[in-house]
Amino acid sequence: MTDTSGADTDLALLDAYWRAANYLSVGQIYLLDNPLLQRPLRPEDIKPRLLGHWGTTPGLNLVYAHLNRIIRARDLDVIFIAGPGHGGPAVVANTYLEGTYSELYPHVTPDTDGMRALFRQFSFPGGIPSHAAPETPGSIHEGGELGYSLLHAYGAVYDNPDLIAACVVGDGEAETGALAASWHSNKFINPARDGAVLPILHLNGYKIAGPTVLARLPEDELLQLLAGYGHAPVVVAGDDPATVHRGLAAALDRAFDDIAAIQREARAHGFQRRPRWPMIVLRTPKGWTGPKEVDGHPVEGTFHAHQVPLGGVRSNPAHLAQLEAWMRSYRPDDLFGHEGRLRADLAALAPVGPRRMGANPNANGGLLLRGLDMPDFRDYAVMVDRPGGVDAEATRAAGRFLRDIMARNDRSFRLFGPDETASNRLDAVFEVTDRMSAAEIRPSDEHVATDGRVMEVLSEHLCQGWLEGYLLTGRHGFFSCYEAFIHIIDSMFNQHAKWLKVTRQIPWRASIASLNYLLTSHVWRQDHNGFSHQDPGFLDHVVSKKAEIARVYLPPDANTLLSVVDHCLRSRDYVNVIVAGKQPSPQWLDMEAAERHCAQGLGVWSWASTDLNQEPDAILACAGDVPTLEALAAADLLRRHMPEARIRFVNVVDLMTLQSPSEHPHGLSDRDFDALFTRDRPVIFAFHGYPSLIHRLIYRRSQPSRFHVQGYREEGTTTTPFDMTVLNGIDRFHLAGHVLDHAPRLQPKSGHLRQLLRDRLAEHHAYVRAVGEDMPDVAGWRWGG
Amino acid sequence: MTDTSGADTDLALLDAYWRAANYLSVGQIYLLDNPLLQRPLRPEDIKPRLLGHWGTTPGLNLVYAHLNRIIRARDLDVIFIAGPGHGGPAVVANTYLEGTYSELYPHVTPDTDGMRALFRQFSFPGGIPSHAAPETPGSIHEGGELGYSLLHAYGAVYDNPDLIAACVVGDGEAETGALAASWHSNKFINPARDGAVLPILHLNGYKIAGPTVLARLPEDELLQLLAGYGHAPVVVAGDDPATVHRGLAAALDRAFDDIAAIQREARAHGFQRRPRWPMIVLRTPKGWTGPKEVDGHPVEGTFHAHQVPLGGVRSNPAHLAQLEAWMRSYRPDDLFGHEGRLRADLAALAPVGPRRMGANPNANGGLLLRGLDMPDFRDYAVMVDRPGGVDAEATRAAGRFLRDIMARNDRSFRLFGPDETASNRLDAVFEVTDRMSAAEIRPSDEHVATDGRVMEVLSEHLCQGWLEGYLLTGRHGFFSCYEAFIHIIDSMFNQHAKWLKVTRQIPWRASIASLNYLLTSHVWRQDHNGFSHQDPGFLDHVVSKKAEIARVYLPPDANTLLSVVDHCLRSRDYVNVIVAGKQPSPQWLDMEAAERHCAQGLGVWSWASTDLNQEPDAILACAGDVPTLEALAAADLLRRHMPEARIRFVNVVDLMTLQSPSEHPHGLSDRDFDALFTRDRPVIFAFHGYPSLIHRLIYRRSQPSRFHVQGYREEGTTTTPFDMTVLNGIDRFHLAGHVLDHAPRLQPKSGHLRQLLRDRLAEHHAYVRAVGEDMPDVAGWRWGG
Repeated sequence: MTDTSGADTDLALLDAYWRAANYLSVGQIYLLDNPLLQRPLRPEDIKPRLLGHWGTTPGLNLVYAHLNRIIRARDLDVIFIAGPGHGGPAVVANTYLEGTYSELYPHVTPDTDGMRALFRQFSFPGGIPSHAAPETPGSIHEGGELGYSLLHAYGAVYDNPDLIAACVVGDGEAETGALAASWHSNKFINPARDGAVLPILHLNGYKIAGPTVLARLPEDELLQLLAGYGHAPVVVAGDDPATVHRGLAAALDRAFDDIAAIQREARAHGFQRRPRWPMIVLRTPKGWTGPKEVDGHPVEGTFHAHQVPLGGVRSNPAHLAQLEAWMRSYRPDDLFGHEGRLRADLAALAPVGPRRMGANPNANGGLLLRGLDMPDFRDYAVMVDRPGGVDAEATRAAGRFLRDIMARNDRSFRLFGPDETASNRLDAVFEVTDRMSAAEIRPSDEHVATDGRVMEVLSEHLCQGWLEGYLLTGRHGFFSCYEAFIHIIDSMFNQHAKWLKVTRQIPWRASIASLNYLLTSHVWRQDHNGFSHQDPGFLDHVVSKKAEIARVYLPPDANTLLSVVDHCLRSRDYVNVIVAGKQPSPQWLDMEAAERHCAQGLGVWSWASTDLNQEPDAILACAGDVPTLEALAAADLLRRHMPEARIRFVNVVDLMTLQSPSEHPHGLSDRDFDALFTRDRPVIFAFHGYPSLIHRLIYRRSQPSRFHVQGYREEGTTTTPFDMTVLNGIDRFHLAGHVLDHAPRLQPKSGHLRQLLRDRLAEHHAYVRAVGEDMPDVAGWRWGG
Repeated sequence: MTDTSGADTDLALLDAYWRAANYLSVGQIYLLDNPLLQRPLRPEDIKPRLLGHWGTTPGLNLVYAHLNRIIRARDLDVIFIAGPGHGGPAVVANTYLEGTYSELYPHVTPDTDGMRALFRQFSFPGGIPSHAAPETPGSIHEGGELGYSLLHAYGAVYDNPDLIAACVVGDGEAETGALAASWHSNKFINPARDGAVLPILHLNGYKIAGPTVLARLPEDELLQLLAGYGHAPVVVAGDDPATVHRGLAAALDRAFDDIAAIQREARAHGFQRRPRWPMIVLRTPKGWTGPKEVDGHPVEGTFHAHQVPLGGVRSNPAHLAQLEAWMRSYRPDDLFGHEGRLRADLAALAPVGPRRMGANPNANGGLLLRGLDMPDFRDYAVMVDRPGGVDAEATRAAGRFLRDIMARNDRSFRLFGPDETASNRLDAVFEVTDRMSAAEIRPSDEHVATDGRVMEVLSEHLCQGWLEGYLLTGRHGFFSCYEAFIHIIDSMFNQHAKWLKVTRQIPWRASIASLNYLLTSHVWRQDHNGFSHQDPGFLDHVVSKKAEIARVYLPPDANTLLSVVDHCLRSRDYVNVIVAGKQPSPQWLDMEAAERHCAQGLGVWSWASTDLNQEPDAILACAGDVPTLEALAAADLLRRHMPEARIRFVNVVDLMTLQSPSEHPHGLSDRDFDALFTRDRPVIFAFHGYPSLIHRLIYRRSQPSRFHVQGYREEGTTTTPFDMTVLNGIDRFHLAGHVLDHAPRLQPKSGHLRQLLRDRLAEHHAYVRAVGEDMPDVAGWRWGG
């Protein structure tokens, strides 16, 4: 065991460093001016609006300072993840003390003027947010929506053998679903190949107003819980700084010793069995070193310390005096010279260069990002000699492409998904890798290995959080998910989209790989599961985010899917959502046509159209694989039974082309839009998702009320594939009927066809309920057949 | 200790009952006809599409049969929650065996014809879903989206002292975030007042294709984990039925003894300290008693048993023979008479009447529902002598109303929220109750008690799941949440909305109380938190669900909020979403006007209008408290600086009035809509959420492109309240400018006002960045001031 915890004199220096960080944190919350207290505080030195979270801040400062010590002592590669990231002042203070902040924000100089700027900008209009955020050096984690810290930490260390993610977990966030599940992430770490996560569970006892669950467990029960999670916890507790410094230094030494030993062993002799990873439980008072009482009420150690302990500083002289005493208790004169520079012996405590946690390139992962080594997606083409001439499973084709990407990028690409890789027919990847597991593996398991690169766990939260951490540290990934259940991470998607939106405005943040979703086992083919598994609404959710971030693709067949996957894996800083089915289906486009179609994003399929470049009677439009099939079958019905109808057939792959270019960069110009959709002809639109999404996208286009959109109407159960389309009115018979309803020129002669459509629907209803299958000539319908 | 586990002869009967349930389960998956195998199986007896999940089913059948035994023996009140609810055949089979099914579905008779109907309908077009679902007697839990079983169980037993929820937790679902967090629900149970939950963790080892995390923990680690969760686990493991029967019977006896002892103690002497609640770990093979091998591959005990173990039964004679052998292994002749009736001695094993788990009224909670005893909401009115004449915090007024509802309904109403009751200014409720905690309570805690009725935990999943369980068993509740983070339960909302939609079509399901959300700390007032806390998109999400379920209200002030809350708490079978701010704001309507306005859902505010019942130049519309304030300030600017402008001011409370009546039952008729909004005048609409939502709602109205909607544009940070509106263009200056832009009659004379608007915006930008506060005349603006 390496003892680097040093003598008490070293800990006294460390304590001074901690005091400096605490001082800077309080300053950020309160001060507009007089940063070094070189004169008595006056009301006008105080911000008019006091915003921020003090309660968690001293704990974060403590951990950061101690990590600095051990990084220096052992030359470690460590990033800091502040689970209670609303303690933003702490991360800002520490990156300022270590010098990173001034390097990235040169106007925040390491002197009195800089300190004034540092204080003023915090939670101030035109300044920086109150949380650890994209603006914060060294952060890959926004501390607003709680629960994802451990997931980001684990994602960061996959395939990062030298990296250790020190992750402070707040006892508030520990109550969330995502955090509670993420403790088991240690079953997915291979110490021979991956780095390590050091969880530091910070029990300060309170959330906003109530006690936390974990802080109120009897200690033996808490230790059982953490041991049950697979950890060897060390408890550091107290409210006496010297005692806690000694305890925390020793605990960190031991933890890093244990991590080193685990990794040494696995790297020397190969992975043998899942180790018991170290972790630290840090139990210190909320708002430690802050006011003990305010107006006679206890504050330190209670929930009253959560945000701003002294509220009336500008108007209440007693509060002002108490603030001044509080700040002076950190002895700023002793910490900073009169020019506001940190004492040299304290500055020397921080690591240097990229070892500083604020400057670690893993926390600005775009710096480390290398493009994927990708084979030519055209090599995976399904041969299509004529539209509908062959059947294929789209995701199976994508799986072969992903397999070879996986093989060529075996340290920078992973697949994530809730136990559905095979079910979603991406199982070609198992030719080159396996599911990852560091737990016991049994003979009855298939494709499970300690060095697998497919991350399967029945938690969309874990998949999403790991992938975010992996991307944010400069790697690539792909998340395949049942369409309905991707809603489980709606809010995580929100936060990642917000992160990307903000990073685009920060010059020093380098671009990262896009977050790619493949939504399959989609609404139209839930044969085994029914209504609970039918929900295409994630598209609506994604489209509400900033247009510069969100991309949605609905490839109608395998070759278009391949082209879209290739495009998405090369893109940066987006969220790409791809919806594609896994069932055997007719293929429409050969690879050349597919590539051209995807490049345009949408287009006329002339082989399915009968308008001969004349003004059409109606446009039949579609987006999504099942709607495309039904729309083509409807076009076929019209062609056969009403040859005089002039129908233009339009397929949409890139959904955002529909939106006005003033609203989305992919939006088609009005001129091009009108060339496709005309300005006034009726459009019968068969859509994969909720119809309202199309209405919302096209509302600025010419005569939006001529768009008659059929999509998922929230009707479903366990039934046949074609019956699902009938239940929701996007089947071929309804679609053809809508064309007749809305194309005035066709109406006089439509009686015969209308009767046929009604008869076929009645026939379907009778057949499916009697036989339990779709009618053979419907299920077996093929274009041109 | 009560030993009711009986002799081996009793267990032999129980085994026969289990075999009967297994037989009926296999029959549901496979058979169209020949239900009793009275002749050799033929291909035409087999369903053409084989759909369902066998793997988990025998375990569910086992637990159900054993619960029957103990319910009878002890006359217990138990509901059954099937976490792995995709094992739907099990719950259907058992409710059929106990007689409930035939009572609710009279065509499914307890004889051969009924058994044929039972088999045929399963996962068959026009039949029943493959999961435990609303159609399933005794279920309050859809088994599609995994993770919520324990939460529903806990919600069911709050204030239900005699009820025990036996909850089977699958080892797949145990990996989800919601389930992982929900183990700690036992910190929120008071055995003196509440019922009990008996978790039965069913480790069958596999998910769809991979091993599960919990099944691969070494047993000592698993037991530490469960002890850490606060449970005393008993393990029952094996693959020999006789052994497992004995073990499970004994384990259940012990568990129910322990529950009884805990409750007796707490009810006799009051709650002393959190008990260690019993639980059972049941480790049995996946697909137990099914085919051991198929085509040479092991099936029983592996993931291959997950869905349909024998796939080719119709076309492969060997599979057909194997299915027949499998079904005959249950000895149907021994179980059912030749008329298909369950043997009398087996039928006698089930409980009778409402003690049957399929007939327990708690699982059809509407049967038990009683309306809330509610005071008159008008008694909580804020006195408003003239519009804008007084300031108030809307949620504080609602809090007083909720306080008195809480006091009057102290066994049937609870508040749920993630530690935000006080922060959201509903703290009047703490005058009559407290936060609930069964954990250690310390002197520094405030309003925390073992008999509290405010359920606070920092997990939206837990709040939502508990509330769902509480509502589904016939009680009332209210969920208050930060607006942005309600997205965390988007998918849970989906599933509950789907549940409500289906139950409306099931005659025997009685109506339950609506699920009420109060979204506060909303997008416009995230002063402490910034961008991560700014997301109004839950409204978009809710609106995508069935119109018959979803209701959205945006009361602009305290009195309208009171009226809306009253309305929502009296409603049934809806999801009501209320968005209302908590900050002090001007009040617009006295109670009489508020009530009238809410009853209409929207209306002209004539006191803010200048159109004098003439054709207006423009309509200024608004929905939401902050948009209403800004729209009124814009109207004020126009009135003062352009007195000739004829502006009609419309406020919308019930968002769904905007939608066409063909799409939503609250939709205003086109005639009434046009009377308010005209057919062609420009509408400048200031909206609380994303602008696209309004476009989506009004797209069927006359000339939708004349609606110019300003709302949240996904721009934000930690800044001042007014600056937030400016960042997103819904501030008074931009709104007034849009009126000028779009009202042709006003444009010629608009130069002066345009300049003033530009100047004021510039002034704002300079002021807020210099001072850190909003300009006094903006922040202090009052109508008529």
